[in-house]
Amino acid sequence: MERYHNFSPGPATLPESVVRELQQALYSFGPTHQGIAEMSHRGATFEAVMDSARQQVKSLLGLGDGHEVLFLHGGARTQFFQIPLNFLRGGRATYLDTGVWSDQAIIEARRYGEVDVPWSSKAQGYTSVPEAGAWGELPEGTRYLHYTSNNTVSGTEFSYVPDAGDAMLVCDASSDILSRPLDGTAFDLLYAGAQKNLGIAGTTLVVVSRRMLERADASADVPLMMRYGVHAAKGSMLNTPATFAIFAVERMLHWIGEQGGLQALAERNAAQADRLYGAIDGSSLFRAKVAPSSRSLMNVTFTTDDPDLDTRFVDEAEAAGLVGLKGHSLAGGMRASIYNAQTDAAVDALVGFMGEFESKHR
Amino acid sequence: MERYHNFSPGPATLPESVVRELQQALYSFGPTHQGIAEMSHRGATFEAVMDSARQQVKSLLGLGDGHEVLFLHGGARTQFFQIPLNFLRGGRATYLDTGVWSDQAIIEARRYGEVDVPWSSKAQGYTSVPEAGAWGELPEGTRYLHYTSNNTVSGTEFSYVPDAGDAMLVCDASSDILSRPLDGTAFDLLYAGAQKNLGIAGTTLVVVSRRMLERADASADVPLMMRYGVHAAKGSMLNTPATFAIFAVERMLHWIGEQGGLQALAERNAAQADRLYGAIDGSSLFRAKVAPSSRSLMNVTFTTDDPDLDTRFVDEAEAAGLVGLKGHSLAGGMRASIYNAQTDAAVDALVGFMGEFESKHR
Repeated sequence: MERYHNFSPGPATLPESVVRELQQALYSFGPTHQGIAEMSHRGATFEAVMDSARQQVKSLLGLGDGHEVLFLHGGARTQFFQIPLNFLRGGRATYLDTGVWSDQAIIEARRYGEVDVPWSSKAQGYTSVPEAGAWGELPEGTRYLHYTSNNTVSGTEFSYVPDAGDAMLVCDASSDILSRPLDGTAFDLLYAGAQKNLGIAGTTLVVVSRRMLERADASADVPLMMRYGVHAAKGSMLNTPATFAIFAVERMLHWIGEQGGLQALAERNAAQADRLYGAIDGSSLFRAKVAPSSRSLMNVTFTTDDPDLDTRFVDEAEAAGLVGLKGHSLAGGMRASIYNAQTDAAVDALVGFMGEFESKHR
Repeated sequence: MERYHNFSPGPATLPESVVRELQQALYSFGPTHQGIAEMSHRGATFEAVMDSARQQVKSLLGLGDGHEVLFLHGGARTQFFQIPLNFLRGGRATYLDTGVWSDQAIIEARRYGEVDVPWSSKAQGYTSVPEAGAWGELPEGTRYLHYTSNNTVSGTEFSYVPDAGDAMLVCDASSDILSRPLDGTAFDLLYAGAQKNLGIAGTTLVVVSRRMLERADASADVPLMMRYGVHAAKGSMLNTPATFAIFAVERMLHWIGEQGGLQALAERNAAQADRLYGAIDGSSLFRAKVAPSSRSLMNVTFTTDDPDLDTRFVDEAEAAGLVGLKGHSLAGGMRASIYNAQTDAAVDALVGFMGEFESKHR
């Protein structure tokens, strides 16, 4: 059975070595000779997996005792409401509107409090992110600044960490988490669905600062499952965690170490993005959809400006063994997702295919 | 690599044939030659998996257009608050308190409205479930009756479906879902974490009636992720579903069909339980913790009445290749979980080991 070059936007490709480890562990893992997905989360074997995942995240993000690392349920979309439920009620927060997901986060936040949106690229089809500080001063009393570090639909990415001043800094890093060195201590709450850079769908990494935990709403109507402090105290085992998904994250974190860590990974990720953007910019058929200063190193969006030809590109690419290249339905065109696990071979194959396609259709 | 006989309470053992299918699909599945956990949930291949899972649940539970089948995030514990958030605010509901999990469901429900608990076995250590109707008439205006059909910690199970009269009927069936024939149309909301009878941790089956959907709270402060109707309209793909966990459920449902369906499975499950309870009742060392009329066919709890000897049993069993037999920390003693996937060979091995242990320690 073969594996095509997989450019899916999430769930996304995994390193083949990790897939092999997951296959083996599904059958039997550890001294109790149970499949990794079949053992109690309360046993020593899975406790060690959870602990290893937590420690590796701490190590990669340079976190100390000031932050908790959690693995929660419900995807980033649950964070969209869990964050304001805990931290916004009766107050105000600032959201930067850089894409479909920040827009959705804003909709959820407005259920709970006042939301300022001083910067938006919505009217321009979300083809850019702001320059540092372009959103001006945060209003007096702002509890937190929320931004989306990488925007998967349009293919934009912040190249810097915003300064939230006295407010807490909250980031949806679902699609660029651990793709390059990052000082985790700059964040009060950093969250990411695992299914892009970090593993498979089913678990959400949440890094939260102790000072933010102390500010959580403790009203009676906040359910136990929505309380970050409870999850921290329970080691992310208030209820049955998504054990197999967390094991996949643990193996991905280990793989990141094997690659030489975040700096080495960042260099490979940047080189792959450069190669793709270079091929697009050097082409007379394809056009990148995002200006260079806002371009994502994770999701490379491009188009021929002819929807029929774009469809043909996606179909012919699939026939040639390159899958997952269709752009998001809201954006159209093409999108090559090149998260941590993407291989140089896949990028080479895509660049080669683009050249062939161009010579046929120019 | 060998696999021990696995009596874990959840996550729990899977059929070996299903494990083999999961291993293969992790590497590559379907015409796009991607791993099942690496492909977009929006593609035709995964859409077909989701649709197959939905249709098989409908077929096994005898459901028609009056019910929706959803696969949600967050485990049964998220249902503990999602149900009252949607259906209790400003009203009252009745909960039967038959175990640790119903007790937790009551705590969450009380955040949102008035909760009547007319029957509880808490003071007796949750060693029984009520006889039909023992909780009396539901108060005027009761919106729903909630019960836990199988109680994993103490090892009790309802052998019948309660009558909710004019109220809606809500059931946490996490630990006996699809273990025997069940008329799904009797329920307005039936929910179950997948990791016991139905697959692996990370997805929650929710069956909900159209009449219940129509009664859901639509206040502005109900987040999108908490709206059953939104998940129904989006085919459980409002956000990225736990694709691999749902695939595991789909394969388990298919396996149930291969076993001859729910009737055949129920007979095997009952025979395994009979064999174990028979061994316990016929022993002079072991004692079942639950009276015959309330005994669970899924979680068989027993003890020697000597905590040290119980610990020794669990340890020696593990050394003999029988794992997951330790009772829940709140209950002590031993617990053999014999969900759908449990094999006759494992039960035989356990009964054999109990005999040997008894002859050594009597």
